[in-house]
Amino acid sequence: MIKIVVAGFLGRMGSTVVNMVKEHENFELVGLYDPFAEISEMDNVPVFTKKEDVLSVSPDVWIDFTMPKVAYENTAFALKNHISPVVGTTGFSDSEVEELIEESEKLKVGGLIAPNFAIGAILMMQFAQKAAEYFPDVEIIELHHDEKLDAPSGTAIKTAEMIQKVRKSKKQGNLNEKETIPGARGADFDGMRIHSVRLPGLVAHQQVQFGSAGEGLTIRHDSYDRSSFMTGVAIGVQKVISLQKLVYGLENLL
Amino acid sequence: MIKIVVAGFLGRMGSTVVNMVKEHENFELVGLYDPFAEISEMDNVPVFTKKEDVLSVSPDVWIDFTMPKVAYENTAFALKNHISPVVGTTGFSDSEVEELIEESEKLKVGGLIAPNFAIGAILMMQFAQKAAEYFPDVEIIELHHDEKLDAPSGTAIKTAEMIQKVRKSKKQGNLNEKETIPGARGADFDGMRIHSVRLPGLVAHQQVQFGSAGEGLTIRHDSYDRSSFMTGVAIGVQKVISLQKLVYGLENLL
Amino acid sequence: MIKIVVAGFLGRMGSTVVNMVKEHENFELVGLYDPFAEISEMDNVPVFTKKEDVLSVSPDVWIDFTMPKVAYENTAFALKNHISPVVGTTGFSDSEVEELIEESEKLKVGGLIAPNFAIGAILMMQFAQKAAEYFPDVEIIELHHDEKLDAPSGTAIKTAEMIQKVRKSKKQGNLNEKETIPGARGADFDGMRIHSVRLPGLVAHQQVQFGSAGEGLTIRHDSYDRSSFMTGVAIGVQKVISLQKLVYGLENLL
Amino acid sequence: MIKIVVAGFLGRMGSTVVNMVKEHENFELVGLYDPFAEISEMDNVPVFTKKEDVLSVSPDVWIDFTMPKVAYENTAFALKNHISPVVGTTGFSDSEVEELIEESEKLKVGGLIAPNFAIGAILMMQFAQKAAEYFPDVEIIELHHDEKLDAPSGTAIKTAEMIQKVRKSKKQGNLNEKETIPGARGADFDGMRIHSVRLPGLVAHQQVQFGSAGEGLTIRHDSYDRSSFMTGVAIGVQKVISLQKLVYGLENLL
Repeated sequence: MIKIVVAGFLGRMGSTVVNMVKEHENFELVGLYDPFAEISEMDNVPVFTKKEDVLSVSPDVWIDFTMPKVAYENTAFALKNHISPVVGTTGFSDSEVEELIEESEKLKVGGLIAPNFAIGAILMMQFAQKAAEYFPDVEIIELHHDEKLDAPSGTAIKTAEMIQKVRKSKKQGNLNEKETIPGARGADFDGMRIHSVRLPGLVAHQQVQFGSAGEGLTIRHDSYDRSSFMTGVAIGVQKVISLQKLVYGLENLL
Repeated sequence: MIKIVVAGFLGRMGSTVVNMVKEHENFELVGLYDPFAEISEMDNVPVFTKKEDVLSVSPDVWIDFTMPKVAYENTAFALKNHISPVVGTTGFSDSEVEELIEESEKLKVGGLIAPNFAIGAILMMQFAQKAAEYFPDVEIIELHHDEKLDAPSGTAIKTAEMIQKVRKSKKQGNLNEKETIPGARGADFDGMRIHSVRLPGLVAHQQVQFGSAGEGLTIRHDSYDRSSFMTGVAIGVQKVISLQKLVYGLENLL
Repeated sequence: MIKIVVAGFLGRMGSTVVNMVKEHENFELVGLYDPFAEISEMDNVPVFTKKEDVLSVSPDVWIDFTMPKVAYENTAFALKNHISPVVGTTGFSDSEVEELIEESEKLKVGGLIAPNFAIGAILMMQFAQKAAEYFPDVEIIELHHDEKLDAPSGTAIKTAEMIQKVRKSKKQGNLNEKETIPGARGADFDGMRIHSVRLPGLVAHQQVQFGSAGEGLTIRHDSYDRSSFMTGVAIGVQKVISLQKLVYGLENLL
Repeated sequence: MIKIVVAGFLGRMGSTVVNMVKEHENFELVGLYDPFAEISEMDNVPVFTKKEDVLSVSPDVWIDFTMPKVAYENTAFALKNHISPVVGTTGFSDSEVEELIEESEKLKVGGLIAPNFAIGAILMMQFAQKAAEYFPDVEIIELHHDEKLDAPSGTAIKTAEMIQKVRKSKKQGNLNEKETIPGARGADFDGMRIHSVRLPGLVAHQQVQFGSAGEGLTIRHDSYDRSSFMTGVAIGVQKVISLQKLVYGLENLL
């Protein structure tokens, strides 16, 4: 059993994490931490308002979904006390990340800082990049609810960038192709095409479609709700305890 | 058993029709017709070079995949002799079609002239039109081989036109949506969006996707090769024998 | 504007209906009804505890998502007062439905009683039935969350029954086909095959897939949450006001 | 430019290979080999009937789609002469393969023997195996033309076996689930489910579908015709020239 403490347990992500930890067969929730908490326990789990007090329950892993400033201090504290941090934030500066990694290496403590825990989306992007080595013809179709402002989505652009790294630049389609209605062929990203579908009822979906003589290969990710991040957090927790240093990005653990 | 004669049996479509007729359990191939034929029979089926001689085998249906001028004369001849014509052509003028329909009404002979026998595609369009009555939010994704010149495809545009007839004009997506790469949101057709995917290995595919609160409805047609037209020809043959007049367009028989 | 009263507005479906009515541009919420309500208005809409008092706001349509016994009395009351009922229930007996329809015919009042308002699923089934007239080869793939007990789903069986009505019985696949692992070819329903996929993360999805020489036609419905029923309720409301009698089943209004 | 000789160029696969080599921008077809050939050149490419004569054109790669017995001798001959063999066969014994690999290691000549060049299918299986490390809930849907005899397909079983190696055995679905029609839940392979769809019009398709809380990941391969193998052969050719030994299985080159 991996003993876990959760910081920021009153927030939206934090409370989802608490539920995940409770339901996971290999995890034990040994403590909750929030400097402003007004309770001393929740469902028989002790609530701490001072970092030092957390050490009394000897956690193996410190999961942190707080604000960047607080998270930075928490991460440094966890490392120093040989607790492996698993931190969900996009707010650390490059130098902060570097500093924490260096510190972790000295202490030989594993950990993870990740801006994104959507493991399904990460696998989709990794598979797409791998497939692009062999199939240079690829189009991305991303589908989202119709309130989304930007097109293409951030994930679609990131996928295209990852593909671009391994794919020789190539203008796809017939060289003389003609759009009888502008935009039909989608967004042009280094010769690849990205299509953004927006419909009510949809959540967040992406399909990366490769074509080659006589065959096709398609990789699709469907995200229905926030709970999907929890698979990534759980995998992070299980991986960090056997690491000797802090890693940035869940993709570097897979 | 429906007795069938095939005109233009040496052409690409004609010879495919001959095979379909032979394999169909309810059809009997009683004759072949081509004024320039140099054989008098093929696999035990008589080959005629004069229209009048075809009457000797008393066909119920005359399938015609010849050139427009010849086909027009053949159709008139078939009607006059109470043989139901099933004609695949895009080449008749409106007045020619009208004239043939009038003639068929006088003679009470059923028949079919169709520019397109792709029954799967026709059903897709009809279903899409029906669904659009209840789901005004719709996007069309059409996918073809990467040698295709035009985007969107003719079928995609025809589908959008059919939807437009029943759907109140509506600009879909977020009213403030922004394309960070131009074209991402596809071609704008009366507020609907059409996306054209082009990849090697693909043939001809179209997906009409509807979205509404909490649900989605998708209609997809995949066309792999020319043989798909034969299902439509066979249905045409079976329908015309119980008609009292000539009909234009396979969709009007379904 | 269609003036609407909602009965059972405190229940789960009822409160969802209230939100839908408020947001719909052609609907006006003129009253709420619940005999046990302890408030006299909600967001400026009057709350009634006596049926007779509802008449003071002259509603055009009475939406009812209460229990069967109450709903029966409410429906009879609405008809008598020339208010068109839209009732969501599976609990009426055949004789109750018949009686209410007879009554509505005498009074020439339109209305709708429906066990199912999932309009997307209803369209999917209607399209599948239509397509089966031309494409006798069909398989159904239904996909649900992995807590579902029964396989195949009720919707899959209902779809197969509807297809069966128009399709000549046919054993699909190779007549000598062999399952090297039992069950691979799915459930056999009059020669059609039904496949039940169960995975966490899924909600309720069904794909009806037709195949014919050289082509395929697929109809798919995705249901993500309860809000999907609201599209059906809204369509019911708009249709009943021009009817002269009560109709059973949303499919008979489409 | 990689200089290539093709053995077995008169066979179905061989002639497809010849076309691929001619069209590839980095390949040069320098010779054709068949002991029974009755021509001395084809489209300006020399045709050899004696292996020794092939050496005169100094090929870099020897592509071989002949019968096993001949292919074995050809492969040994190519290695000995420092030509990299790319061999498509399922007919070599384990000891023959081992022997050829040993020989190649001594000579430091790269090469490839592969029973299967369908690179898209191989990537699908590799991605599925990788995803299964993180998503233990998976079902396989394979779809083929309706003349196929066996269900599930060989590829589906191979995919399941590869997943089994990394996935803790798990009975999927509700533990109390009930098939109201037998077979609905498909074939049971170590708790995973495999569904075999058979329809006219289909060729060879497979979808591996993973589900987890709030998300789904799907990997799909569509194979339309034999030409799809050529992508794999071309990749094999490009990889072998930088190898120092013979490799068995295209998957071990990716």
